[in-house]
Amino acid sequence: MITLAVDAMGGDAGLKITVPGAVAFLKQQSNVHLIMVGDETLLKTALTEAHAPMDRITIQHSTQIVEMDEAPQLALKNKKDSSLRVAINQVKEGLAQAAVSAGNTGALMATARFVLKTIPGIERPAIAKFIPSANNHMTLMLDLGANVDCTPEQLAQFAIIGSELYQALYPDNAPPRVGLLNVGTEDIKGTETVKQTFKLLKQTQLNFIGNVEGTNIFTGTVDVIVADGFVGNIVLKTMEGVAKFMGGAIKDEFSANLFTKAAALVAMPALKGFKGKFDPRRFNGAIFLGLRGVVVKSHGGTDALGFAYALEEAYHEAHADSLAKIEQGVATQLAVLAENQIANESAIADNIG
Amino acid sequence: MITLAVDAMGGDAGLKITVPGAVAFLKQQSNVHLIMVGDETLLKTALTEAHAPMDRITIQHSTQIVEMDEAPQLALKNKKDSSLRVAINQVKEGLAQAAVSAGNTGALMATARFVLKTIPGIERPAIAKFIPSANNHMTLMLDLGANVDCTPEQLAQFAIIGSELYQALYPDNAPPRVGLLNVGTEDIKGTETVKQTFKLLKQTQLNFIGNVEGTNIFTGTVDVIVADGFVGNIVLKTMEGVAKFMGGAIKDEFSANLFTKAAALVAMPALKGFKGKFDPRRFNGAIFLGLRGVVVKSHGGTDALGFAYALEEAYHEAHADSLAKIEQGVATQLAVLAENQIANESAIADNIG
Repeated sequence: MITLAVDAMGGDAGLKITVPGAVAFLKQQSNVHLIMVGDETLLKTALTEAHAPMDRITIQHSTQIVEMDEAPQLALKNKKDSSLRVAINQVKEGLAQAAVSAGNTGALMATARFVLKTIPGIERPAIAKFIPSANNHMTLMLDLGANVDCTPEQLAQFAIIGSELYQALYPDNAPPRVGLLNVGTEDIKGTETVKQTFKLLKQTQLNFIGNVEGTNIFTGTVDVIVADGFVGNIVLKTMEGVAKFMGGAIKDEFSANLFTKAAALVAMPALKGFKGKFDPRRFNGAIFLGLRGVVVKSHGGTDALGFAYALEEAYHEAHADSLAKIEQGVATQLAVLAENQIANESAIADNIG
Repeated sequence: MITLAVDAMGGDAGLKITVPGAVAFLKQQSNVHLIMVGDETLLKTALTEAHAPMDRITIQHSTQIVEMDEAPQLALKNKKDSSLRVAINQVKEGLAQAAVSAGNTGALMATARFVLKTIPGIERPAIAKFIPSANNHMTLMLDLGANVDCTPEQLAQFAIIGSELYQALYPDNAPPRVGLLNVGTEDIKGTETVKQTFKLLKQTQLNFIGNVEGTNIFTGTVDVIVADGFVGNIVLKTMEGVAKFMGGAIKDEFSANLFTKAAALVAMPALKGFKGKFDPRRFNGAIFLGLRGVVVKSHGGTDALGFAYALEEAYHEAHADSLAKIEQGVATQLAVLAENQIANESAIADNIG
């Protein structure tokens, strides 16, 4: 049995979305229990109205709410009984295997980092997301915005936690192919930081396939793509922008005249299939990776279906026992990297001597 | 009458693409003359076969070709009679108003920079491209890969040359809205370099609208978007990747079964309209901006139609007399920026004193 802690007050619409989302999710997954965190009275009313299966739900009362535009450091200091923080506390105390929130991203990250701490050897958590690519492949990309300025060491750590998560979720696959997002595939490409990262990744035991380009996010030829949070976030928003623009352009073409409108009716099944394939709600749920606990961030403006998908994402990670596997994998990978670095430095010293 | 110099030997397929592309372009534009640069004998044969209008074409013989994978510095040193270089020489000598090449990007940039030099006050040239966005708007984005590591000053210079080009091409519009590509719209977002750039852009006379996100490339709400070449190139390739992936997904949906295949026939006009709208050949032609001459780079692997579009792009710039306007605008903008910086520094000194 998996238990998830849900920040029921978070997001642009709070309970109006989280409660029906939770109910929809419980209908899909039988082997799961939810701790809904928020105002007890409001939660009881909302759950009753939504005909929620109360035998699979626990209400955890909390008195505060972190506003969507509140400064993370203020939320951390002043909102110790917020629904967001109490949800993360459930994970810290071992009462839930994952926490899910549609609340303030910065506050969620700061709180998660403060309460749960990072995995030993991982300096900073990263935001990761599975992105659909060709042939029904999913590409895990990180960091998507938690860290705008990264050192080569931090980027190498992101590669390790990303690879370990992928392996935990897809244990039957070959070792995940890890790529470094760059402006070309040649070894010597990129900024100074990226060049140094390339050298570090070569010394890991990861299945590092080298530099990859923006096009490769969608080719299904790489499993884990590493970038700093500045590049990653811009890339993510660019994808969303293109998808929305192209979706709108298709609609325009089919609304052009009576003939194309009639054609749209005939083409409806194919168009619906296409629309469903790129429905952003299906890909809702960003993973805060590198923490000693599973935390999933839902888009703040999603609807109930989108929120249910974020719960699904958290469920998969908890079900795969991904955290324990990542912690073990990270320890092994970092030990190998340290060993190889010392060996290389000794070899250089030998040459000098 | 506009004269364009064409590197006829450049690109993956050389004359097989450049000659039919040139012929197609000449059919579209009447008020233009082409200097085709390359091996005279081969060019004569290819032009004859393509029934080229020889009264509007001059052949300029050159003996060398820069290979697509040749190191730029070697091309610069050893290929002084390459078709690529001789085409740029035509611009330098005032015999042509723009040069177009589908050849080696690095070699083209190095050669253009060496032969033409940059506009006074512009340290580095940038690669710029018009990107289609909502409501038939075009967003000019730069740098797309010429400079992976940029200083705030260089990024501010890119903003200035981009804005001046936009104004030169769309003189009837309001002053171009200039945005800085970032991970959020708040002033304090981004890397250290980007934060410094923000402050610099605030001191220019540009219509600087602040930070913009990846989604804004396609919303038609900003005219010129500035990024360093690392981010810009990854964003460009991401767009191409999404567009190709989504195009493939539509095809898949309409090929799913007999019914959807039949629907595809009915939907053909709308689907063709959609396909045409995102045909990458229509957007072929990246602009090397900041040089004392107009140089347009065609994709190396394009076909004749794509190459014709790159010629069209060069023609538009030459026709708008963009270079003279950019040089004049840059001088004014840089003078204002320098004045404002001195004024601000004096104000700070006043406060200290």
